[in-house]
Amino acid sequence: MKDSNDFSRRNFFKRAGIGAAAVAGMPLLTQACVPSNETAKIHDYFAEGDVVLLQGDSITDAGRSRDNEFPNNPWSFGVGYANHIASWLLEAMPEKNLSIHNRGISGNKVYQLADRWDKDCLDLKPNVLSILIGVNDYWHFRNGNYDGTPEIYENDFRELLTRTMDALPDMKLIICQPFVLTGTRAVDESWLKPFAPYQIIAERISDEFGATWVPFQEVFYHAATLADPTYWTEDGVHPSMAGAQLMANTWLEALG
Amino acid sequence: MKDSNDFSRRNFFKRAGIGAAAVAGMPLLTQACVPSNETAKIHDYFAEGDVVLLQGDSITDAGRSRDNEFPNNPWSFGVGYANHIASWLLEAMPEKNLSIHNRGISGNKVYQLADRWDKDCLDLKPNVLSILIGVNDYWHFRNGNYDGTPEIYENDFRELLTRTMDALPDMKLIICQPFVLTGTRAVDESWLKPFAPYQIIAERISDEFGATWVPFQEVFYHAATLADPTYWTEDGVHPSMAGAQLMANTWLEALG
Repeated sequence: MKDSNDFSRRNFFKRAGIGAAAVAGMPLLTQACVPSNETAKIHDYFAEGDVVLLQGDSITDAGRSRDNEFPNNPWSFGVGYANHIASWLLEAMPEKNLSIHNRGISGNKVYQLADRWDKDCLDLKPNVLSILIGVNDYWHFRNGNYDGTPEIYENDFRELLTRTMDALPDMKLIICQPFVLTGTRAVDESWLKPFAPYQIIAERISDEFGATWVPFQEVFYHAATLADPTYWTEDGVHPSMAGAQLMANTWLEALG
Repeated sequence: MKDSNDFSRRNFFKRAGIGAAAVAGMPLLTQACVPSNETAKIHDYFAEGDVVLLQGDSITDAGRSRDNEFPNNPWSFGVGYANHIASWLLEAMPEKNLSIHNRGISGNKVYQLADRWDKDCLDLKPNVLSILIGVNDYWHFRNGNYDGTPEIYENDFRELLTRTMDALPDMKLIICQPFVLTGTRAVDESWLKPFAPYQIIAERISDEFGATWVPFQEVFYHAATLADPTYWTEDGVHPSMAGAQLMANTWLEALG
């Protein structure tokens, strides 16, 4: 595992505070809704024969079968947002003949994506790659099972994407914002300041790589004004059925 | 099991022929799309605190956990259309506080629903009940594992719904059309005439009980003009990811 380093956490706290205030003050997204098939720009995002890969941790994994890693197969997708996204794309664009894979693995942090990246990304030669990673990079540090820091997250993430774009220079990239909701079983207010740097880093890296950014945190904040936070995520990290659909809608809107 | 009876299959063949011609000649639905949250009448269909029950066979079951029959729980929903419907409703209507159950069981025919109806329907006291049943009533007859007929399907289905509405007179009912696609692994042209009576009966019963009718067959026929039938259902009965999303969209449109 990696050592901690000279990264200035205090500066990140400060930026996180600004970030949180900005989020609190900004006009929130209206409730996400799936774009209609007829009008959505999302159709132009995908080319015929595109290979689409969804990567991440348990939120992406969502109980998918490990014995059965086929594209476009519901058992290979589990019961989370990745299933909703893939099902929506496949239904809406039959003429595109998309091959969509889920390779999320529970518990993963960025360095664990890197460890399996040849097999679980580069060998699949995706034309479109969506990554949601980061909550475990903090959570496992918090619970004493990992000695990573925000700077390690940033360096590992940048290195992973540099390696990816070197191998697949024409690939389109989608970076999803790691998110949490307080007032839930596992997440309380003490998460917000230390977790915010990871969210800021993910967005900065998304900008650096010209990725499409999926702003899950603000959407979940807004959702929590409509129903109790536990309605969207019981433990504050893993989405409910409503939360998984909210994620899929947000992802589709970000592309549409 | 039940004996066959004096039901005139020939008359059903005839009606099926007319039905098929009518379907071939009628303007097909445009590709189903999920109604937008803001405008959909579907919001008015559900009341606060409604219990919603999805019932059927393997298509509804879709690998749901038997150990874990909770409402609004993704593991209890499996990876099929029922999950997409429930996730959509829960995301779109957080203020309704819906409790949505899936009790589909693989292989079920109508009489098997009846056998478990107290536990798996009446005891749950649904405000809204959706049923998709019928393909096994024909398929298991076809493969020699069941001696049912269309008339038995009709009598059993009517009896089941009469019993249900007697117990739950204010319940809203949604009847889904059983469907198949030929040119797939398990279904060829020889299915169409003998299966059509079951489809006609389901619609007649839907009309009799004032149910909302979900016309899956015509939507799948239309879908099969956009991509190979196996894109929507590999064996002609069980939907792919695209097919499951198509079903969910069709169901939501039928209510919206």
